[in-house]
Amino acid sequence: MTPYCELSKEELLALKEELTAQYEDAKGKGLKLDMSRGKPSGEQLDMTMPMMDIFNGHCDMTDEQGVDTRNYGCLEGILGARRLLGEMLGVDPEHVLVFGTASLNVMYDSISRSVTHGVMGSTPWCRLDKVKFLCPAPGYDRHFSITEHFGIEMITIPMGEEGPDMDMVEEYVKDPAVKGIWCVPMYTNPLGITYSEEVCRRMANLSPAAEDFRIYWDNAYCVHHLYDDRQDTLPELLSMCRANGKEDMVLEFASTSKISFAGAGISCIAASKANLEWVKKSMTIQIISHDKINQLRHVRFFKNLDGIKEHMRKHAAIMRPKFELVLDTLERELGGLGIGSWTKPLGGYFISFDSMDGCAKAIVNKCKEAGVTLTGAGATFPYKNDPRDCNIRIAPSYPTLDELKQTGELFVLCVKLVSVEKLLETK
Amino acid sequence: MTPYCELSKEELLALKEELTAQYEDAKGKGLKLDMSRGKPSGEQLDMTMPMMDIFNGHCDMTDEQGVDTRNYGCLEGILGARRLLGEMLGVDPEHVLVFGTASLNVMYDSISRSVTHGVMGSTPWCRLDKVKFLCPAPGYDRHFSITEHFGIEMITIPMGEEGPDMDMVEEYVKDPAVKGIWCVPMYTNPLGITYSEEVCRRMANLSPAAEDFRIYWDNAYCVHHLYDDRQDTLPELLSMCRANGKEDMVLEFASTSKISFAGAGISCIAASKANLEWVKKSMTIQIISHDKINQLRHVRFFKNLDGIKEHMRKHAAIMRPKFELVLDTLERELGGLGIGSWTKPLGGYFISFDSMDGCAKAIVNKCKEAGVTLTGAGATFPYKNDPRDCNIRIAPSYPTLDELKQTGELFVLCVKLVSVEKLLETK
Repeated sequence: MTPYCELSKEELLALKEELTAQYEDAKGKGLKLDMSRGKPSGEQLDMTMPMMDIFNGHCDMTDEQGVDTRNYGCLEGILGARRLLGEMLGVDPEHVLVFGTASLNVMYDSISRSVTHGVMGSTPWCRLDKVKFLCPAPGYDRHFSITEHFGIEMITIPMGEEGPDMDMVEEYVKDPAVKGIWCVPMYTNPLGITYSEEVCRRMANLSPAAEDFRIYWDNAYCVHHLYDDRQDTLPELLSMCRANGKEDMVLEFASTSKISFAGAGISCIAASKANLEWVKKSMTIQIISHDKINQLRHVRFFKNLDGIKEHMRKHAAIMRPKFELVLDTLERELGGLGIGSWTKPLGGYFISFDSMDGCAKAIVNKCKEAGVTLTGAGATFPYKNDPRDCNIRIAPSYPTLDELKQTGELFVLCVKLVSVEKLLETK
Repeated sequence: MTPYCELSKEELLALKEELTAQYEDAKGKGLKLDMSRGKPSGEQLDMTMPMMDIFNGHCDMTDEQGVDTRNYGCLEGILGARRLLGEMLGVDPEHVLVFGTASLNVMYDSISRSVTHGVMGSTPWCRLDKVKFLCPAPGYDRHFSITEHFGIEMITIPMGEEGPDMDMVEEYVKDPAVKGIWCVPMYTNPLGITYSEEVCRRMANLSPAAEDFRIYWDNAYCVHHLYDDRQDTLPELLSMCRANGKEDMVLEFASTSKISFAGAGISCIAASKANLEWVKKSMTIQIISHDKINQLRHVRFFKNLDGIKEHMRKHAAIMRPKFELVLDTLERELGGLGIGSWTKPLGGYFISFDSMDGCAKAIVNKCKEAGVTLTGAGATFPYKNDPRDCNIRIAPSYPTLDELKQTGELFVLCVKLVSVEKLLETK
């Protein structure tokens, strides 16, 4: 393969003509596919359908502690659910509160509560002139939307192969206006990499100027491995912080949205007891108790971490070929052309693609024109502003293999065409 | 019956001795009952158990619009759920958003959002020097807790037999700092009365100085009748406001917590489209979608308003004897004594008892000492401060009839004893 940058103007023009013809052809196919979000496929959701039969025949709805899950009460969530999600995160149940369906909601509420009531007695953020957040990017767009919604200034921290640039993080936390950092530490959205032990060690040893600084540790993909034999591992941050006498510094979040049902799972926060007490001070005003029936449903279905792992192996069997298909297409079609690079994750929901600078928006637009919706270019950066306009998040989970084949082919075609046009601009 | 106030000091002293002996006796029985909250009984919850079998045998989880309820999406809630809860409130589905399990959570979020982001473009309340709320009292303690939590000044509005004192309400809303009023308009907590048509008419015609003033209309007991033949009726406020060109002035809330499962039902907000758009602006940041599986479960189980009504007749059959037992006990033991008055609701979850001034706390304490926990005296007023210390909320739903008999007897005994002690203070 000749890298595109070595092609002459004439060669590029000829290539452009050929690619344009292919693209017009593709547009004629009338594709209509949405790959914008990390949605589980119907096939994955089917794996959890037996959970719907868990309470068949009017069985006992009382939990191991005698809590009638059908009634009010048990603000913290039932013990079984605290234990199950705690096991998943490597945290004791007494450090876990179980909420409703969405960890996003729990994170939103954590920020909202800090804005109105502060953090464990600190000044409410709404009374401060300036509040800043560190945002490793590319990262999860919905994290950035929350901080943007509350008018919090976002500072982009570049992501490396081992996680966020910790030199920058350590420097920025000296600013007392910096109140937090958004992290997806494992199979991170969208890169698919996992923070290294060294990054976690430095994270757990931060010395922020702000006493209300928290690490928002969204461990969304902690059991979402693609392979049995090749898996990333992540140290447990709460205990690492505790070992440093800093156990109040981290709030961990997780849910079963991409384990059981997307939008009908259970979610949790894991943190020090002091943090949990603070959370509960608002929580007890906000709600009497979350859906304990759904909690019990999950406990009876999964039983324990082994149950979750076994279940996730079924997911992996569905997800693996999808990831491999996309990666094969990228390698076969773009390998050696010098117009893009991409990550090869061992888990999670995304592949991150970097085009040549200034091409991502155009590629996404071209795909859209031909019927394939990708995550908006820029979405993986604070304020949806990717300074190099190069990052595209690929979400292979939802389409079928056949759809994915079509999308993949369209995608590489668009990458080629936009890259050629870009290169021609300077010839 | 001789009214206690006509008894001589000697008679009161003799009575006190007799009642004290009875009370010591009661204490010896080792009661342990909690009547503090309006919790459905297990028997009521059993009525909804067939809902647990709704999805048996891996049935189709797609709703009438083709939404796979197991996956992300459909922020507003599935159409069927919007229609079902809309029917219950007498509001069209396009004016309804369906949320998670708890309307309390929806109300909390409404206030929280107003504090951080204002209401439909108005100044966020956190930037105002003073925000006030009108609180008809006795009222629902958890409403008052929300406004207290956000530092909102609460103004007590006396409740009459037809609802809040509307002269006062109309006067107070001239103050631009007054941003809302908490209402439980039907079978109100704790009085059990229903706002009259005249009160609703005046409510829908308020001319508040604050453009971001809203009526927080918590229609929690809209289908919670005790009798088939004697039922309160409530006009539909949203359409009344609309008729006055004021449809943005009301936010209605409801849930199935006391219809299906307490803490595992579905909840909603009903309002003008402009209000709903405003709610959705934050909602779309906060969550991807609420639990649509539970929404579909409710839709398939209840089908429509008739299904809900039929279900609520089963509840009434359980609740009615409990209300009647308490009312009979009060009438038999306290009638004519001049030491208490009480409401005789046709629905809802509560009976409201007014003791002689300055006696409520002592009565609740005496009950507690003998093993029966009632709602804290004062809880039905802002800041838990009942100026006359006379209101006690009785929640007859949870205990069995047998337990209720014991509690009722203890309660009237405590009322008598505390009243005698009170009267002796001035003899």
